[in-house]
Amino acid sequence: MGPVPAGGVIVAIGDDCAVYRPQGAKEDLVFTTDMMHEGVHFLMETHSARDIGYKAMARGLSDIAAMGAEPRFALLSLSLTAKTDAKWVEEFYKGLLDLALAHGAPLLGGDTAKASAMSCDVIVCGGVPRGKALLRSGAVPGDRIFVSGLLGGSAAGLRTKKADAWKRHLRPKPRLNLGQFLRQKRLASALMDLSDGLSTDLHRMVNASGVSAELDGLPPLFPGATLDEVLHGGEDYELLFTAPRRAKVPAEFEGLPLTRIGSILKHGKVPVTWNGAPLPALGWDHFTK
Amino acid sequence: MGPVPAGGVIVAIGDDCAVYRPQGAKEDLVFTTDMMHEGVHFLMETHSARDIGYKAMARGLSDIAAMGAEPRFALLSLSLTAKTDAKWVEEFYKGLLDLALAHGAPLLGGDTAKASAMSCDVIVCGGVPRGKALLRSGAVPGDRIFVSGLLGGSAAGLRTKKADAWKRHLRPKPRLNLGQFLRQKRLASALMDLSDGLSTDLHRMVNASGVSAELDGLPPLFPGATLDEVLHGGEDYELLFTAPRRAKVPAEFEGLPLTRIGSILKHGKVPVTWNGAPLPALGWDHFTK
Repeated sequence: MGPVPAGGVIVAIGDDCAVYRPQGAKEDLVFTTDMMHEGVHFLMETHSARDIGYKAMARGLSDIAAMGAEPRFALLSLSLTAKTDAKWVEEFYKGLLDLALAHGAPLLGGDTAKASAMSCDVIVCGGVPRGKALLRSGAVPGDRIFVSGLLGGSAAGLRTKKADAWKRHLRPKPRLNLGQFLRQKRLASALMDLSDGLSTDLHRMVNASGVSAELDGLPPLFPGATLDEVLHGGEDYELLFTAPRRAKVPAEFEGLPLTRIGSILKHGKVPVTWNGAPLPALGWDHFTK
Repeated sequence: MGPVPAGGVIVAIGDDCAVYRPQGAKEDLVFTTDMMHEGVHFLMETHSARDIGYKAMARGLSDIAAMGAEPRFALLSLSLTAKTDAKWVEEFYKGLLDLALAHGAPLLGGDTAKASAMSCDVIVCGGVPRGKALLRSGAVPGDRIFVSGLLGGSAAGLRTKKADAWKRHLRPKPRLNLGQFLRQKRLASALMDLSDGLSTDLHRMVNASGVSAELDGLPPLFPGATLDEVLHGGEDYELLFTAPRRAKVPAEFEGLPLTRIGSILKHGKVPVTWNGAPLPALGWDHFTK
């Protein structure tokens, strides 16, 4: 991160969160914003108000986890249509606030508007000791690559609308304790959350770090997920991290498996390979889908 | 504000901004979020991309001014349709960033998404010395009520699409210097910005302060504005403040008139009167319009 300034902007556009250093403060503050739109991120027919509220907050908290930070507070901009009834709004807030308060992030304020479709923008602020935020850009050649949990569940759930995979799609768990554990134990050199699919997110990490990556074997598979969903399916909200070779990464943390899936190499022509062949970024791209 | 805590949430939902106190920091941080939706807040046919970007940022900066704070940074969540072209986006960013950077608020990050209509959510963070944020809730009986500038211009501009009133609608000026001046000189007991119309915003101030208000004479009229637009027209983004009787409020600040429009009374049955008759809150209400 270069010389540490006394205050101001530390990390701008490009990581899971922006990092701001208040003058004289004990901790850096990290900020993330995440929008959800009816018809794009959810359907009123298949997603309950409470699930939508939960997920809107879970996505923001996952970005806080991805910096190794602790949630401090949240803001909400909420757009409703003329048809939205009071019960729906109450359930939405319940889903959002239950999760936020369980993780120490009270809702401080925001904005409301009427629009032609329901949408929301959740802003979450987290705190992390000065200069200790875990960035995407810290991976170096020789580091090992890990993921938490099982991948592909959210995409499989969206396809089947069934069983645990559908629950995973509706109610992803922000890995806040794991993010803080990795920071406190100095286990991770780079950290991000898996929101747009392993292939796409890993490309972002190696790009930010100026390195390449090789994956081997099969990433840990959520029951019922296809290979395509494991490699490219979005919205798992597990953590992707790299660890120096000497770091003692446990096989699991609070019952969640931590699986080694590959290694970081020097920057080469192919950003990411999987079992020897190039792995393209085929996850979610906000600008093409 | 009661006993001043060492850190945490100071002001939650209900003021122009939320106030957060980072542990050990020299200043409190204030946060505002403001959404704009195509078809609700602007039309692609009549509003240029650069004007839309400008106004999205101006609304947030006006909330920072309304706390007596200085801008520190901004975040942007931006939703575009499949039809939005690159030139439009470039012009939008130019309008937004030119204003933000002119006021010391670099863009730190945010989110992007595709949606069925263009919308944006601007988050602005400001800084103010600990415990010195100017709230809506500080007005006490005997205080005098002031507004900056001329009122009704934005509503008149939206009606006529002509001359200075249309410019005022498209390019409201956040009164940042005035807000900081009022705080530094300890001139204001309560402060907010006029976003939804004088009648509605003044009701909010007296409600937050637990007082009533009487207005007399005619509030300062933007050329071409009707009486209805002066009293109830939104989006002027001028400042509304109360000052103790002993406070020496100048007649103007940096060329902007500061006009006394009434007085604060003890809490009574009628929240706001104008020349002796009840003045209802007929400005913009996000939940009925």
